[in-house]
Amino acid sequence: MSTMMTIVETAAWLKARDSFLIMTHRRPDGDTIGCAGALAQGLRESGKSAYVLYNPEVTPRYQRFVMNYRAPDGYTPEYVITVDTASAELFPKNSEIYAGAVSLCIDHHPSNTFYAENTCLDGGYASCGEIIYEILIAISGSISVRSAEHLYAAVSTDTGCFAFSNTTANTLRVASLLIEAGAPHKELNKLLFRTKTRSRIKIEGAIYSGLEFYFGGAVAISTIARDIMASAAASEDDVDDISSLPGAVEGVCAGITIREMTSPQDCKVSVRTSPSVDANAICKRFGGGGHSMAAGFTLNKTILEIKEALLETLKSFFPDNNE
Amino acid sequence: MSTMMTIVETAAWLKARDSFLIMTHRRPDGDTIGCAGALAQGLRESGKSAYVLYNPEVTPRYQRFVMNYRAPDGYTPEYVITVDTASAELFPKNSEIYAGAVSLCIDHHPSNTFYAENTCLDGGYASCGEIIYEILIAISGSISVRSAEHLYAAVSTDTGCFAFSNTTANTLRVASLLIEAGAPHKELNKLLFRTKTRSRIKIEGAIYSGLEFYFGGAVAISTIARDIMASAAASEDDVDDISSLPGAVEGVCAGITIREMTSPQDCKVSVRTSPSVDANAICKRFGGGGHSMAAGFTLNKTILEIKEALLETLKSFFPDNNE
Repeated sequence: MSTMMTIVETAAWLKARDSFLIMTHRRPDGDTIGCAGALAQGLRESGKSAYVLYNPEVTPRYQRFVMNYRAPDGYTPEYVITVDTASAELFPKNSEIYAGAVSLCIDHHPSNTFYAENTCLDGGYASCGEIIYEILIAISGSISVRSAEHLYAAVSTDTGCFAFSNTTANTLRVASLLIEAGAPHKELNKLLFRTKTRSRIKIEGAIYSGLEFYFGGAVAISTIARDIMASAAASEDDVDDISSLPGAVEGVCAGITIREMTSPQDCKVSVRTSPSVDANAICKRFGGGGHSMAAGFTLNKTILEIKEALLETLKSFFPDNNE
Repeated sequence: MSTMMTIVETAAWLKARDSFLIMTHRRPDGDTIGCAGALAQGLRESGKSAYVLYNPEVTPRYQRFVMNYRAPDGYTPEYVITVDTASAELFPKNSEIYAGAVSLCIDHHPSNTFYAENTCLDGGYASCGEIIYEILIAISGSISVRSAEHLYAAVSTDTGCFAFSNTTANTLRVASLLIEAGAPHKELNKLLFRTKTRSRIKIEGAIYSGLEFYFGGAVAISTIARDIMASAAASEDDVDDISSLPGAVEGVCAGITIREMTSPQDCKVSVRTSPSVDANAICKRFGGGGHSMAAGFTLNKTILEIKEALLETLKSFFPDNNE
């Protein structure tokens, strides 16, 4: 049983307490990281003790939003807060000890499992950052430059710089107010959305040159062999969201990326689809799964073997285009 | 001598008159097209006669924003209006007859030459669409769904879906209000920013594979020969905003695109820079110009000749990196 709290109630709850530890989720994105940094900053400005639990998976690009708030070893908070974290399964490994001890969860995922003692949830928001914004405004009436910077990262990354279909009028309204509050949006947009490493450029060039189309152009398959990664000197950061590329081609309903991982017999497959095709159903045939428009699986077969098996399976998903 | 008018004065000027022809600029982008459609729509809603002069260069992607307003043959307006058009040299060929007869120019380019009888100019706006928004609000107090759709296209395309450095708090504020007014932003974002044609994919692949770096990686040069366009079966739509690609590589301060147009001796050059480098100053050396971070010029020389001339000129802009 979790107590549901409104944004105003959550602000009052926070104002009445002190000594907080804020947690981000596993495979942290800009939303959970930006929210954690902004909430810690805002609570500190209100005279509270607030820290963010170290998450070893935060990539260099996002360090700046949480590095000033890292909890010292041995810090024992009165209250543990999670941001943008739908379930306890999403806790990073080093925070699993808090699984049954979360006092407050602030989230925007409709799939939230209400694992916390108190939950401030609104699935209508595109980003958790928009909720944190309202909470900070409810606490102090204003947003500092630092909080604005962190929240701009949260709001913009969760909406693909306002281009994803989850973007709402409120997303843009909040982003506008964050810029007015001093968020360095030009610098952040450049950092988060408009900078590609030379390695990334090489990988994208290889993917675009090697794209294969099937079923009358409804299926696009991209393959990333290990030697491509090696010759581009690419890191994991360089292939972030790379599996969205094949699905962005006009006419493609299923964009598939097959990537060699540790060996030619160890492949990771990502399937992105338009609403008419069930990515989860496709991946379940191979022992994987996910969402209806984004799913995946891993298989101990070569790229070529997987491609052939996929094309065979896809016949039943594209019965009108068997070519 | 052009009379400068504020947004409120421009709204009053429009309300007091009737029978308008609205003109877009040569090589029309989303801003000029969306502004023309929105202004025509808004004026019609105020009971005026308003048409948009046919511009043969409008690409299929942008047709929907102006097709309902095409001026019939022989239409003789009382007043000719230009939107987003900095100088008479930017008039499309079929509108050069109006060069000395423009009653009102609404624009956001600081480089405007004041060629019109009246000018409503504010260089502080990221897009002309934001100015048209304010004018339509000043005229009627509200924005219709259709005008909102056209203006969303204008505002979003001129700011790269709010990611370019020209984006301001006002850009996002207006975009938020346009969505509230009914602009179909999800559909438009998918159409304008998240769909790539197969030809586009081929062009991007070729650009990424062929990028050349100079001055220690501070300058990236991309060349687009006519045969690349031909082999990719690429249209103008397919190379929209292609000149932003070289500047998106990490460490690049000046991203330059040299493109062959009608012949190998007819090239268009686009220069995109970070704040530390003046794109306008670079392009002025070649008889062109534009904004401080985005400018261009055309030259009747080959790609190779232009590249050599540019690299020579750039030495004075990158004195510490002469390699």
